[in-house]
Amino acid sequence: MARKKKTNKQQLQNLSKVKVIGLGGLGEIGKNMTVIEYEDDLIVIDCGMGFPDDDMLGIDSVIPDVTYLEKNSEKIRGIFLTHGHEDHIGALPYVLRELNVPVYGTRLTIGILKNKLIEHNLLDSAKLFCIAAGDVVDAGAFSVEFIRVNHSIADACALAIDTPQGVIVHSGDFKLDLTPIEGEVMDIARLSELGKNGVSLLMCESTNVEHSGYTPSEKTVGASLSNIFHRNKDKRIVVATFSSNVHRVQQIINTSAVYNRKVAITGRSMLNIVKAAIELGYMNVPAGLIIDMNEINKFAPENVTVITTGSQGEPMSALYRMAFGDHAQIKLGNKDLVVISAHAIPGNEKLVDKILNEFYRNGVCVFHDADVEVHVSGHACREEIKLMHALTKPKYFVPVHGEYKHLMQHKELAEEMGESDDDIFVLDLGQVLEFDKNEAKITGSVQSGRVLIDGYGIGDVGSIVLRDRKLLSQDGIIIVVASVDINERILLSGPDIVSRGFVYVRESEELMEEARNICTDTLLNCLDNNIVDWTQLKNKVKDELSKYVYGQTKRRPMIIPIIMNI
Amino acid sequence: MARKKKTNKQQLQNLSKVKVIGLGGLGEIGKNMTVIEYEDDLIVIDCGMGFPDDDMLGIDSVIPDVTYLEKNSEKIRGIFLTHGHEDHIGALPYVLRELNVPVYGTRLTIGILKNKLIEHNLLDSAKLFCIAAGDVVDAGAFSVEFIRVNHSIADACALAIDTPQGVIVHSGDFKLDLTPIEGEVMDIARLSELGKNGVSLLMCESTNVEHSGYTPSEKTVGASLSNIFHRNKDKRIVVATFSSNVHRVQQIINTSAVYNRKVAITGRSMLNIVKAAIELGYMNVPAGLIIDMNEINKFAPENVTVITTGSQGEPMSALYRMAFGDHAQIKLGNKDLVVISAHAIPGNEKLVDKILNEFYRNGVCVFHDADVEVHVSGHACREEIKLMHALTKPKYFVPVHGEYKHLMQHKELAEEMGESDDDIFVLDLGQVLEFDKNEAKITGSVQSGRVLIDGYGIGDVGSIVLRDRKLLSQDGIIIVVASVDINERILLSGPDIVSRGFVYVRESEELMEEARNICTDTLLNCLDNNIVDWTQLKNKVKDELSKYVYGQTKRRPMIIPIIMNI
Repeated sequence: MARKKKTNKQQLQNLSKVKVIGLGGLGEIGKNMTVIEYEDDLIVIDCGMGFPDDDMLGIDSVIPDVTYLEKNSEKIRGIFLTHGHEDHIGALPYVLRELNVPVYGTRLTIGILKNKLIEHNLLDSAKLFCIAAGDVVDAGAFSVEFIRVNHSIADACALAIDTPQGVIVHSGDFKLDLTPIEGEVMDIARLSELGKNGVSLLMCESTNVEHSGYTPSEKTVGASLSNIFHRNKDKRIVVATFSSNVHRVQQIINTSAVYNRKVAITGRSMLNIVKAAIELGYMNVPAGLIIDMNEINKFAPENVTVITTGSQGEPMSALYRMAFGDHAQIKLGNKDLVVISAHAIPGNEKLVDKILNEFYRNGVCVFHDADVEVHVSGHACREEIKLMHALTKPKYFVPVHGEYKHLMQHKELAEEMGESDDDIFVLDLGQVLEFDKNEAKITGSVQSGRVLIDGYGIGDVGSIVLRDRKLLSQDGIIIVVASVDINERILLSGPDIVSRGFVYVRESEELMEEARNICTDTLLNCLDNNIVDWTQLKNKVKDELSKYVYGQTKRRPMIIPIIMNI
Repeated sequence: MARKKKTNKQQLQNLSKVKVIGLGGLGEIGKNMTVIEYEDDLIVIDCGMGFPDDDMLGIDSVIPDVTYLEKNSEKIRGIFLTHGHEDHIGALPYVLRELNVPVYGTRLTIGILKNKLIEHNLLDSAKLFCIAAGDVVDAGAFSVEFIRVNHSIADACALAIDTPQGVIVHSGDFKLDLTPIEGEVMDIARLSELGKNGVSLLMCESTNVEHSGYTPSEKTVGASLSNIFHRNKDKRIVVATFSSNVHRVQQIINTSAVYNRKVAITGRSMLNIVKAAIELGYMNVPAGLIIDMNEINKFAPENVTVITTGSQGEPMSALYRMAFGDHAQIKLGNKDLVVISAHAIPGNEKLVDKILNEFYRNGVCVFHDADVEVHVSGHACREEIKLMHALTKPKYFVPVHGEYKHLMQHKELAEEMGESDDDIFVLDLGQVLEFDKNEAKITGSVQSGRVLIDGYGIGDVGSIVLRDRKLLSQDGIIIVVASVDINERILLSGPDIVSRGFVYVRESEELMEEARNICTDTLLNCLDNNIVDWTQLKNKVKDELSKYVYGQTKRRPMIIPIIMNI
């Protein structure tokens, strides 16, 4: 018996280790991406996009740095998607352009992805595979099993990855909803079976780890909506929510049907997703219920519900346009009720408030998160996270999907569950965790980080450009132009001063005139004193003007001297 | 009896009406300022500063437009301050420079104001008067009574203004704290006496009208702090809070004394306010308890508490510098505990999170609002607001201090209390409410708005400058410089292209080269075709370059063509 065990152990020790690398979603919210590697095989879990930070001026979005994948492109056996949210699939159009590897996901996830790839002209070349919950995909040394979880989008899955060193469970984004709107409850049976057979590594999301208890069922929102519809039978009702929350939209439709209302839909992404969800059978809409936005005035206001995007207060979204009276098809007033069925994502609070204030100002009745239960989260709170640990009973644990505060609090939670400090790894982006059946440790790190998307540019805006944008945004720019004959030491024309974003020039003529005088004096002084080195000349002008401007205004505009030699 | 009543009524009708005008704090949080006027007498309540909106790039702060006061400067009998917070006194250094009128406030309020005026070299000329709660100040046709309320700063008052048309009660910022740290409970007796005798108009703050129930007593924070100190006897403790919350600081000092800790203070405003509060007797510190920040290493870490600014995550605040290892006197690690005894003001959540994440990353233990009750609000929740209405029983009501959503919800609250819709006025900035004993109505409006402060500049940054800053921040700037001999139709030098905040030029040589070619072709083409009008020439260059750049990058940098004639 003892000998047999030893032999097993020796065999195991001869096996290579499994590597786990987070390329996104660690120490940050969004751009989720995890690499799992064993010898010559590598798979990727999710390929998400992130939001730019406040100081990333002009940046549209952020994707993971996938240099490591490009260097190991031969090894990649596929990208496995847990669900169809932007922070899990949004970077695919950029990544697939460089790495056209197979992509696996459930039907709705692939459906949403297809819409994105069409916009990027990539649908024809992409290799997409629809997988159902419960299915297993072989991928080199791995086999990947899709396991049903509940989330704020339909068809979300956790993944169980069988590796030569044991099973990895990746929770994806999840919650436990015992009364889901459509589809099944999270597959507790399968997760506990995996736990019973032994899970080597759990990677579990951390989004709501700061919230105690359980996230309420999506169904509680339906009850709130019913109450609101019941008490406002005389009003037109507008409901704003996340377009991807198919179940929420379904509940709004159901409630509208009960209260004899037609439903009109506005906002590009809402129209797209509802269309896809109906086509794929994820949404069930009574015939004739949905009407075109152009038709809403054919019905009495109290017989109309409008479902719209803009629940985050996004400028130029349909809801924003309604608030500011710019929506082509609908004007809201004191006969209307707006329900914001969403919670403001951190950083968006002020945008949402801007809309709320405008509705209040115009006498529109508003229900939002603070009033009544018109929104529930899609993420597990602490007790549900504990359930995931209790079911899978992992040997090693890596908290994912969270800022540092979330990851560290998730670590504390795991310790409360009896997991050992030595077996919990709070990883940085790019850090390589290697494990086998005996041990796990961090062995190094690979290139990782953020690639900024600005317009068509992928990664061409870096720290210098951002620093300049920041400077320009604070105090504007002053351009000093002059032409000189450097041989003759003569000022030929100028200096002229052009400014933008600094002061309102027409009301600051004296200041600008004096600024011009200072530049003239400085230039003449240099020429007289044989200072003819371009850099020196420009720096002199810059320094003198900067000193004057700061003294007068306490501002530090960017100063660009342009001196031409003719 | 009937006749007598009639006579009274006639006499009253011969009286002028009292005007009430909000110059700040209506439809916005901050920059609170209210004008009360009767014939040739005018008083001002508070003179606050506001925070710039996110789209006011580079703006330091916002003050009310006081054109109306400047036009009526002869009438002003004084500015009456309810308490010493920035949003109630912060605009005084700017306003007093133009309007050197008497200023009345309680002792701590005037003490804090003095510090501000010293920084602005205005202390010698200012006419400041210290008033105690209960005192009455005569001011032309008015007499103004200061009434004790509780708030997150000591020495806060409501005001009761006796006018020829009855009493106006202005709540200032308040809460009901039945166990205040120092000083007395809100003067319920006086407010109810006023109510009994008849209050014509109530102006009541609306900050927390969205929150049901009562705001907990400041004392509950002391209990939480005690628990934390008790359970962390082995750690150095750093507590961040608002410097103006004298009672909070007092509780941190008390708890430190109990747990045998010395207290060091860091952060300029914290040092200033603690010094002022001790000098004025608002804080009670055992001798020898406070040590200099430079001395903290002379004591065992577990015998030290540090009180610091930076609870809002302000970049370069003392707490921020601690988080990022830049604080000269203290380095934090896993032997330290940080308590953030404050709630993030809307818009600051991400800044606070940035600090929290950095502490977690470095193993520093953190307690903040989400964990435990380490902060309470200084503002009345719904039940306390109702109490103010119940005590004063006003004839007319104007909700103040709030965005539209707050003002409208406060109106609904007043209606719940039985006040009539006709007697409640949700005012816009500048609107004039006139009332006498028979009626109140909005009769017009005066100039009002926001004046932006940027460095030394007061109001010199307007919408055009802000629009340019916004443009510059999004996609940067491209400057095209060329010199021509317009008579000879010759391009003398250039065009040269300089860009900032657009792309990283060294990695975009091809793009910049092609941009230069386009400018050259456009200029030569113009010269060849006798297009020599400057505006036309510049617009041509701008249009062609803009088209090219957008096509290549989907960005719209600001383009400034500078063409010199030599």
